[in-house]
Amino acid sequence: MAYRILLIHGPNLNLLGDREPSHYGTMKLEEINARMERLAEEHGAELRALQSNSEGALIDAIQEARLWADGIIINPGAYTHYSYALRDALAAVRLPAVEVHLSNVHAREEFRRTSVIAPVVTGTVAGLGWRGYAAALDALLGLLADGGGGQS
Amino acid sequence: MAYRILLIHGPNLNLLGDREPSHYGTMKLEEINARMERLAEEHGAELRALQSNSEGALIDAIQEARLWADGIIINPGAYTHYSYALRDALAAVRLPAVEVHLSNVHAREEFRRTSVIAPVVTGTVAGLGWRGYAAALDALLGLLADGGGGQS
Amino acid sequence: MAYRILLIHGPNLNLLGDREPSHYGTMKLEEINARMERLAEEHGAELRALQSNSEGALIDAIQEARLWADGIIINPGAYTHYSYALRDALAAVRLPAVEVHLSNVHAREEFRRTSVIAPVVTGTVAGLGWRGYAAALDALLGLLADGGGGQS
Amino acid sequence: MAYRILLIHGPNLNLLGDREPSHYGTMKLEEINARMERLAEEHGAELRALQSNSEGALIDAIQEARLWADGIIINPGAYTHYSYALRDALAAVRLPAVEVHLSNVHAREEFRRTSVIAPVVTGTVAGLGWRGYAAALDALLGLLADGGGGQS
Amino acid sequence: MAYRILLIHGPNLNLLGDREPSHYGTMKLEEINARMERLAEEHGAELRALQSNSEGALIDAIQEARLWADGIIINPGAYTHYSYALRDALAAVRLPAVEVHLSNVHAREEFRRTSVIAPVVTGTVAGLGWRGYAAALDALLGLLADGGGGQS
Amino acid sequence: MAYRILLIHGPNLNLLGDREPSHYGTMKLEEINARMERLAEEHGAELRALQSNSEGALIDAIQEARLWADGIIINPGAYTHYSYALRDALAAVRLPAVEVHLSNVHAREEFRRTSVIAPVVTGTVAGLGWRGYAAALDALLGLLADGGGGQS
Amino acid sequence: MAYRILLIHGPNLNLLGDREPSHYGTMKLEEINARMERLAEEHGAELRALQSNSEGALIDAIQEARLWADGIIINPGAYTHYSYALRDALAAVRLPAVEVHLSNVHAREEFRRTSVIAPVVTGTVAGLGWRGYAAALDALLGLLADGGGGQS
Amino acid sequence: MAYRILLIHGPNLNLLGDREPSHYGTMKLEEINARMERLAEEHGAELRALQSNSEGALIDAIQEARLWADGIIINPGAYTHYSYALRDALAAVRLPAVEVHLSNVHAREEFRRTSVIAPVVTGTVAGLGWRGYAAALDALLGLLADGGGGQS
Amino acid sequence: MAYRILLIHGPNLNLLGDREPSHYGTMKLEEINARMERLAEEHGAELRALQSNSEGALIDAIQEARLWADGIIINPGAYTHYSYALRDALAAVRLPAVEVHLSNVHAREEFRRTSVIAPVVTGTVAGLGWRGYAAALDALLGLLADGGGGQS
Amino acid sequence: MAYRILLIHGPNLNLLGDREPSHYGTMKLEEINARMERLAEEHGAELRALQSNSEGALIDAIQEARLWADGIIINPGAYTHYSYALRDALAAVRLPAVEVHLSNVHAREEFRRTSVIAPVVTGTVAGLGWRGYAAALDALLGLLADGGGGQS
Amino acid sequence: MAYRILLIHGPNLNLLGDREPSHYGTMKLEEINARMERLAEEHGAELRALQSNSEGALIDAIQEARLWADGIIINPGAYTHYSYALRDALAAVRLPAVEVHLSNVHAREEFRRTSVIAPVVTGTVAGLGWRGYAAALDALLGLLADGGGGQS
Amino acid sequence: MAYRILLIHGPNLNLLGDREPSHYGTMKLEEINARMERLAEEHGAELRALQSNSEGALIDAIQEARLWADGIIINPGAYTHYSYALRDALAAVRLPAVEVHLSNVHAREEFRRTSVIAPVVTGTVAGLGWRGYAAALDALLGLLADGGGGQS
Repeated sequence: MAYRILLIHGPNLNLLGDREPSHYGTMKLEEINARMERLAEEHGAELRALQSNSEGALIDAIQEARLWADGIIINPGAYTHYSYALRDALAAVRLPAVEVHLSNVHAREEFRRTSVIAPVVTGTVAGLGWRGYAAALDALLGLLADGGGGQS
Repeated sequence: MAYRILLIHGPNLNLLGDREPSHYGTMKLEEINARMERLAEEHGAELRALQSNSEGALIDAIQEARLWADGIIINPGAYTHYSYALRDALAAVRLPAVEVHLSNVHAREEFRRTSVIAPVVTGTVAGLGWRGYAAALDALLGLLADGGGGQS
Repeated sequence: MAYRILLIHGPNLNLLGDREPSHYGTMKLEEINARMERLAEEHGAELRALQSNSEGALIDAIQEARLWADGIIINPGAYTHYSYALRDALAAVRLPAVEVHLSNVHAREEFRRTSVIAPVVTGTVAGLGWRGYAAALDALLGLLADGGGGQS
Repeated sequence: MAYRILLIHGPNLNLLGDREPSHYGTMKLEEINARMERLAEEHGAELRALQSNSEGALIDAIQEARLWADGIIINPGAYTHYSYALRDALAAVRLPAVEVHLSNVHAREEFRRTSVIAPVVTGTVAGLGWRGYAAALDALLGLLADGGGGQS
Repeated sequence: MAYRILLIHGPNLNLLGDREPSHYGTMKLEEINARMERLAEEHGAELRALQSNSEGALIDAIQEARLWADGIIINPGAYTHYSYALRDALAAVRLPAVEVHLSNVHAREEFRRTSVIAPVVTGTVAGLGWRGYAAALDALLGLLADGGGGQS
Repeated sequence: MAYRILLIHGPNLNLLGDREPSHYGTMKLEEINARMERLAEEHGAELRALQSNSEGALIDAIQEARLWADGIIINPGAYTHYSYALRDALAAVRLPAVEVHLSNVHAREEFRRTSVIAPVVTGTVAGLGWRGYAAALDALLGLLADGGGGQS
Repeated sequence: MAYRILLIHGPNLNLLGDREPSHYGTMKLEEINARMERLAEEHGAELRALQSNSEGALIDAIQEARLWADGIIINPGAYTHYSYALRDALAAVRLPAVEVHLSNVHAREEFRRTSVIAPVVTGTVAGLGWRGYAAALDALLGLLADGGGGQS
Repeated sequence: MAYRILLIHGPNLNLLGDREPSHYGTMKLEEINARMERLAEEHGAELRALQSNSEGALIDAIQEARLWADGIIINPGAYTHYSYALRDALAAVRLPAVEVHLSNVHAREEFRRTSVIAPVVTGTVAGLGWRGYAAALDALLGLLADGGGGQS
Repeated sequence: MAYRILLIHGPNLNLLGDREPSHYGTMKLEEINARMERLAEEHGAELRALQSNSEGALIDAIQEARLWADGIIINPGAYTHYSYALRDALAAVRLPAVEVHLSNVHAREEFRRTSVIAPVVTGTVAGLGWRGYAAALDALLGLLADGGGGQS
Repeated sequence: MAYRILLIHGPNLNLLGDREPSHYGTMKLEEINARMERLAEEHGAELRALQSNSEGALIDAIQEARLWADGIIINPGAYTHYSYALRDALAAVRLPAVEVHLSNVHAREEFRRTSVIAPVVTGTVAGLGWRGYAAALDALLGLLADGGGGQS
Repeated sequence: MAYRILLIHGPNLNLLGDREPSHYGTMKLEEINARMERLAEEHGAELRALQSNSEGALIDAIQEARLWADGIIINPGAYTHYSYALRDALAAVRLPAVEVHLSNVHAREEFRRTSVIAPVVTGTVAGLGWRGYAAALDALLGLLADGGGGQS
Repeated sequence: MAYRILLIHGPNLNLLGDREPSHYGTMKLEEINARMERLAEEHGAELRALQSNSEGALIDAIQEARLWADGIIINPGAYTHYSYALRDALAAVRLPAVEVHLSNVHAREEFRRTSVIAPVVTGTVAGLGWRGYAAALDALLGLLADGGGGQS
């Protein structure tokens, strides 16, 4: 069976490559998405990517994933730190999900150390750059293949 | 060139498989280490694993890694939450390092959400079970191949 | 005179019936809205319901209510806990308003105990399931009939 | 079956009508109790009301309710904010219970925003004046008729 | 060279003149924008104004300003207090920016004293009513003429 | 009528130009005062400037301003963060007042983000360098001309 | 006119003379009451004293004072630190009241520094031993003679 | 000499056996008291037991113990967490005292981890069920036999 | 023997009568000092009064009091809340001292509830207006006549 | 069946008798261990005692106890306050365990009031001197005889 | 080259020898200054000492040191804990500086553990009595001789 | 008499010279120890140095010092911030002790500003590099020669 994965990028991640490259690297979002689609294909899976600056649009996308996706990879951007609405959406759809951050959020401003999302996802990856997305996909597909990964 | 990686497991991780399987899974530490060694080999790298319940012994091992290793993967166990001595050791050796937790520490007791280690490592992975170690190794070797990964 | 009431549902409430039924019950949002419309009619009042996952859309709706509504019933969902923008909208329109939560937010995660909305509404109801909306409507219409209920 | 409800008023509520009418309104406690008894009768239920300034007497009344009542409506007055003994009594008797406040406690002094009682009751109502008691009764009888409302 | 400035108004500022005039004055937003446009013209500059209740739309506008504007004046409304996403947008575009508040936010509720935006802008103005916008524009154009004002 | 304005500079501001130019710029205090006097004259107003390292002397000057001045511009330097005595003096004289900081205090050490002065002044300006004083003067004279600006 | 004053002593004050004399002195409660009655008589006033270990009984006494007393002197003992119910009683009766402590509560355990009572009384006296009661009586009678002292 | 011990049970402990048996066990209070009286007898001591829901009554009992008892065993129930009045009573009578809790208060809600009583007693026992009372009695009698146990 | 008392008034108290009369009353400082001198004379004592806005001058005066005074009455004004230097001076001279506040500092802004002075004085009086000074003098002379009042 | 109990003493407890006897008494560790061994024998049980200053050695001992012991008595010394590694070891082995402190930790420095160990043990005893160990042993053997005492 | 050192003593240090000798010793300030001058001479350096109770005067002295001194030794007395103005002065003059305290400030009241000065000086010495000044001088002269010691 | 001093270096100090030289300088630990031994000899004293990464080993060394040493100089490294076990060891042996840090811990990360060791030592030195050890030795020998330096 071909697993289907939703890859969600939150606010300001459309500026990747451009924005503070010391934190976020120089690779553009399109390139990351392209690599992730290829990687999914190599695993016989399908990946659809989406970016939005709007909290409501991100919630809509998560809710719709109930209807077609087997798992979610999400970089919530700055919503990580306060969007309990995003958290509730992830908790409500009950799909296995991995939270990814490009930079090591623990080595930056204090507010970046708090994630209101982390308690409702399966796992988190931070500081590994674009490789973090790949790691999340590998693990997510592995968990799905094991028949698990959902929230208990 | 064959990269050499130190894999460190902190206190109580020798009980894996046995201890609170709902958090930590049923795979034994020996099995994880064996898988990691094979995976390293597949990448043409070498991995040496070590477990200790003693903070001092873990610090000694990190210090010695300066002399032979190219990177560190560390699951600091409960030392994650208070061992500034371990943190200082990792900062002092200046090797690329990834902190790994088997369980999603953010979904458990409040004290598990604080890592004093995270600000000095390259990245962190949590909640992905044994796959988290594999993800860390993949990313670490990728970073080394890119010629980077160390702390700036 | 027929009072007109706006009933607003915040993020993820469109999933009602589906989502964590132990917290939120098994009744769907459509059913709650239908019951509320009937109840309003029985009181000779009119009720219009609206759900959105978008903070901006919720604010827009509250602002427009200045032009047609006599009172507001709002379940702000997770925006309860951080949306000072929603709070400012409610304070700005100066209509009597009741904040409703389906579950007993005080018996769940710590963050759910803080409402930034509560200080600017007339009253709050929590933990009474769909009956909480009915209670809010009864009280709101009673207050309006008394000629009051607005914020001083 | 005729449900029997205990209505408990905590410290200083015997002064209602007299005391800070901008917060508590001008209706006297006797009038509220009379209205509530009539309302209960209309629903084919029985309501007994009690006021005391003494924490111990309130606990005694709650404990005795185990022997005759089907539900509790309680305005704990200032004990709301610190009486863990009252909380333990409510938790111990395991009857469905609704906490009511006449004023919007969230719009007043900071200390009034904390309820140590709320986590152990079924639901809470605040800021709706005497109508809050009526709302609580309606909801409580509805929950009992549904066969539930107790604490899980 | 004619500098181009983006003037952004956050949630609920479209109600200006109407809303809590003791805090926000009686001048309407259209009037403020008109005055600001005239003032810009007098300085040989161009000013474009925008208001939205939506966090995502505000972020979009800031991101687009990278392509045409030389500086930003922003009254983030209530987003001031929690929108790290707005903050990240301002930090990412690296344009000189001034945060303006009509009222003296320091003399109101405690939560209004915290700005998550302030650390990433050039400067802040509060409590000077519509004159605060004029002051921001004067200073911003002066800084641009000096060849600076951007974030280091 | 010619308005008279007191311009007060607190501790260490006599070192301007010399001291940490990355924060405070290279313009000397004498130059700022001279510019401000000229600017006041252009508006038909009179400005008297004063600097002191002594909290008591600053309070004395504020108290005396009751007898001759129409408004106050004050950069309290480090007293901003703890001098409740200065705050009480400003509150007691009830003149319109603007607090000015040369640097963006919100982008520096945590303690600089707290102003005990701000709640009793009309408005605040920060991060705009010497232009902040000019902005404060413009706004203050405008407010006085409008017949207001004092504390309510 | 002869003013009538209620003097209330809270829990454990019946042990005075006996209990921790380094904090509370060696004078017995009866002796203090006798002195206070004489002192009241000398001022042409009447004083009635009461001690109870029960929070409810203290509230009852305060409520009854509405019917006969012109002012209250109260040493709330340890209830000082948490009895919001006592505070509400004092606020409700709206009589001028002075809070007295025999010892200097500020020089003892941290918890003794917080009084939940102080914000609703006219004034407070601490650390002056039995003389504190005399000082409170003098001031209270003076305020009554001035025609004031009540809470606004 | 036959030591005399007061055994005090605070609020809601009269419900033992009935109330939340997973925390408090299934043994009734009468049975515990009977066991304790027998155990005291076996040691040649006398034990008198008392339960009350009223804080004032508990304080009265402690004060009276000065006149007849050699030591106190107290389970303050929920008063543990806030009754500084109870604490003051125990400190005032200066008898050796042991605080006992049936359940492990440290493994339950956060508020149960704070005891305002503990700093003034000789020792504490928690989590050992009814055996905790026996342990307290053994230790208390041992301390008395050693000629000590009082507070210094 | 004729006791000699130093009466110290801190910052902004020279404005009494003028400044915020709802908090501080309408009596001028000169009038208070005159009353206090007469009152001291009536007791056969001598009182010298001093006001300064300068923390250093207040400390100097306290230090000099070692050489001539038997006791100190001090209203530290806003220095109450942060002047550890004033506190150290009072602790160093080891004279009996009473801290007086005209207004009820506990019923105003949060910061006014903290006194860094209170732990080192004999006692405190607040909220009794000018009568507070008289109360302090009475008590201080009484304590001196008893041969005590100093700090242990 | 003869139960086997591990008695563990943490850092600095080898100095007992010598170290701060006002807190810890004058009995040496050897004497306590000898008494405990005799007491265990009297109950037909076996007790093995161990002291170490090393956190790692204590964890090792707890882990090994899985293989031979039926219960644990532990005085973690200062590790009580921060060793989450010790806590995890106790939680992992899932044996009934009692935490013992010789002194009343609640009557000493603030940091001694926090135990990170207490939430994972069966019960705690403090302040009863060497008798605390005896009380722990009695209770532990009783719990084992009841067939319980382990962590659920 | 002969280094010139400014030795500054803050408030109440003029009372040394007299004041709380258990904390501060019995040596007078003059004696300390004399010893320090001799010690400086022995090192071929010059030391000028100054004491003031006035924050402003201390700042003035630090500012003037820019013009003649090579380093500063400062005991800020109680200003240590809150004088950000003193801190700014030390940061502004950019001379190597050592903060000295006679007593071990960490073993006294909680507020003495915070130094707002320490982050801007080269080093700190506490608890070594007058020897602390000598240690500071030795180290300061050594650093100057090494050609460093200033703040980077 | 020749005083004997123990010099203890905590975790990671064996890397001195190598590790973050901007904080810790370029001198190796061996060199520091050699200098300290020579300096001790010059004073007619004996110094023995020891480094360990193990908390237990450091505690063992401190305990053994009771048997041979007259004083302790300790740089606890990162254990400074959390090792209450090390603190208890130092308190237990009751030898005069000085805590030394090479870098100015107050100018670095927030966690480095807290020392759990400082309240039990005689004094502290920080930020003076290797000279801090020399300063500690000088002061310690001086205190011993004065016949004091121990903890009271």
